[in-house]
Amino acid sequence: MIEDKTPQRTSIAQLGEFGLIDHLTKHFEIKNESTIKGIGDDAAVLDFQNKKTVVSTDLLIEGVHFDLAYMPLKHLGYKAVVVNVSDIYAMNAKATQITVSVAVSNRFPLEVLEELYEGITLAAKQYDIDVVGGDTTSSQKGLIISITALGEADADDIVYRNGAEQGDLLVVSGDLGAAYMGLQVLEREKQVFQVNPNNQPDLDNYTYLIERQLKPEARKDVAEILKALDIKPTSMIDISDGLSSEVMHLCKQSTVGCNVYEDKLPMDPQFINVCEEFNIDSTTIALNGGEDYELLFTIKMDDFDKIKGNPNFTVIGHMTQESEGIHLVTRANTKIALKARGWNALQEE
Amino acid sequence: MIEDKTPQRTSIAQLGEFGLIDHLTKHFEIKNESTIKGIGDDAAVLDFQNKKTVVSTDLLIEGVHFDLAYMPLKHLGYKAVVVNVSDIYAMNAKATQITVSVAVSNRFPLEVLEELYEGITLAAKQYDIDVVGGDTTSSQKGLIISITALGEADADDIVYRNGAEQGDLLVVSGDLGAAYMGLQVLEREKQVFQVNPNNQPDLDNYTYLIERQLKPEARKDVAEILKALDIKPTSMIDISDGLSSEVMHLCKQSTVGCNVYEDKLPMDPQFINVCEEFNIDSTTIALNGGEDYELLFTIKMDDFDKIKGNPNFTVIGHMTQESEGIHLVTRANTKIALKARGWNALQEE
Repeated sequence: MIEDKTPQRTSIAQLGEFGLIDHLTKHFEIKNESTIKGIGDDAAVLDFQNKKTVVSTDLLIEGVHFDLAYMPLKHLGYKAVVVNVSDIYAMNAKATQITVSVAVSNRFPLEVLEELYEGITLAAKQYDIDVVGGDTTSSQKGLIISITALGEADADDIVYRNGAEQGDLLVVSGDLGAAYMGLQVLEREKQVFQVNPNNQPDLDNYTYLIERQLKPEARKDVAEILKALDIKPTSMIDISDGLSSEVMHLCKQSTVGCNVYEDKLPMDPQFINVCEEFNIDSTTIALNGGEDYELLFTIKMDDFDKIKGNPNFTVIGHMTQESEGIHLVTRANTKIALKARGWNALQEE
Repeated sequence: MIEDKTPQRTSIAQLGEFGLIDHLTKHFEIKNESTIKGIGDDAAVLDFQNKKTVVSTDLLIEGVHFDLAYMPLKHLGYKAVVVNVSDIYAMNAKATQITVSVAVSNRFPLEVLEELYEGITLAAKQYDIDVVGGDTTSSQKGLIISITALGEADADDIVYRNGAEQGDLLVVSGDLGAAYMGLQVLEREKQVFQVNPNNQPDLDNYTYLIERQLKPEARKDVAEILKALDIKPTSMIDISDGLSSEVMHLCKQSTVGCNVYEDKLPMDPQFINVCEEFNIDSTTIALNGGEDYELLFTIKMDDFDKIKGNPNFTVIGHMTQESEGIHLVTRANTKIALKARGWNALQEE
């Protein structure tokens, strides 16, 4: 048999708005007890019983937050979910539901949207969340994804940004900066490809970094690990815009200062190698890279023994009096003021 | 003093993402007991106690859902909220919170966003809802608004689309088609303006229609009125895409048929006049116009006496066996199959 090399392209206009929503959402399974009614009515109906509800929302825009030149649609769908549930985990809560709205220009065929929803479905499965609603419409330009995540937690378990106190330890999960360097590698390969489309990139030395950029995971496990260790963080935030920026949020809302120690910043060996290759200072990227989706939190000094040596966490500093300011203590033991140079989606182009 | 006629234009890039969010959201007040924590953390925290939570979301795109040529920003912000809370009211629930995400290209100055948020703030006040979260970012083109609305209801009060039964009466609040004809008037004036920018439009004969298009209201009152009348609808939906389309949703999900009576369709006199002026069949528009944000619901025949003569509601038909199909019974007493020709945001341009 002769294979049909023409990929199938179905116009989304053929299906219409309701047909499209039906088509894309019919495979979603409901797994959470709190979901009473998912997609298919004017609104979803949820039942959090005696738990509190947490809600967060994010908007992802093509050309601003992602580049389809190197972001496969399936990965994009997955990442869009991760970005949102990460905010729920940063409250020390359990993510339970999401709504997904997508706008695409008519140039996108149905198959592209199917790929996107495959990624969304995979992430929903991975994080045990139900897709309970959404909206599908056309855009004037590009792809737009808006996700709202809901979660639940006992009132006593919820951790805000404003509970850190002087003397608390500053802790981060995982490692820092890899997602940003993954983006640099992809940007470089895109430029190489534009010059020579036949060039086959060899990305073996960059697999971890690229995975951190294209398929990040949210730290669903952190709340569970902390519970098992009998630790309740005093404050918590997720690292989407870069460590510096998030440290400053915690300090500002908790009215404390902070010392972050350069030699404590957790970095993957591949990250360090690639920073050298790109001739970029690894500390700068670890502090400002963004998109790591790790959790940054503070714990009481008394809890240090419980967390010490845990491979999931690194103590990177401690909170001080507000008047002492927010500083990086360098390897040379000099203190320099920390600045938030995190990614700004509103910068002039 | 000489007035400075140059309107102030502040670049949103100057403020940055966090500055912008702070600036736009600092005036939001929290009014609902269920809101424990609003804007300012990774997620909002809500407490619905023993009530069920309802959630709905909508995405509005410039050039697809609205035209800034005749849609003042403040009205747009107001309408974006209305569109979403209408879905909550369609569950017979109380709207309590919204999250608001906005993407704008850098060509928009801060003042434009302020106007948009003024409308959002006004609607939040009007509908007693708290703005508890959101996201602000840049877009490649135009203005994008994504709102998620949350609400609460006792389990027994929630009304789905699938509860209608044979013999139930079909009821609609308010009147139909005015929003669509308001849009036709505005489109005509836009064309006149493009030919002659000095022409001052006289819109006195169209005020109701234009208001229905530019500043629609959601039917917050319907749940309250029905409760006072001791009526629980058997099914309910809001009319965003046109009556025909919504009747078909109710019938499909409830597995019933329906007869809608042409001579019962509620129309405002101004709507009838303008349909004549435009030489458009008023029934067609009442059936397919969309954007009315009225509520369509079914009640038990036994409840007829409670609703009869109520100025808020019109009985427009009754539900039949599924096998009888979905029909319009015309003034000439002929039955024609109802077709959903509601607005399709995905149609080819």
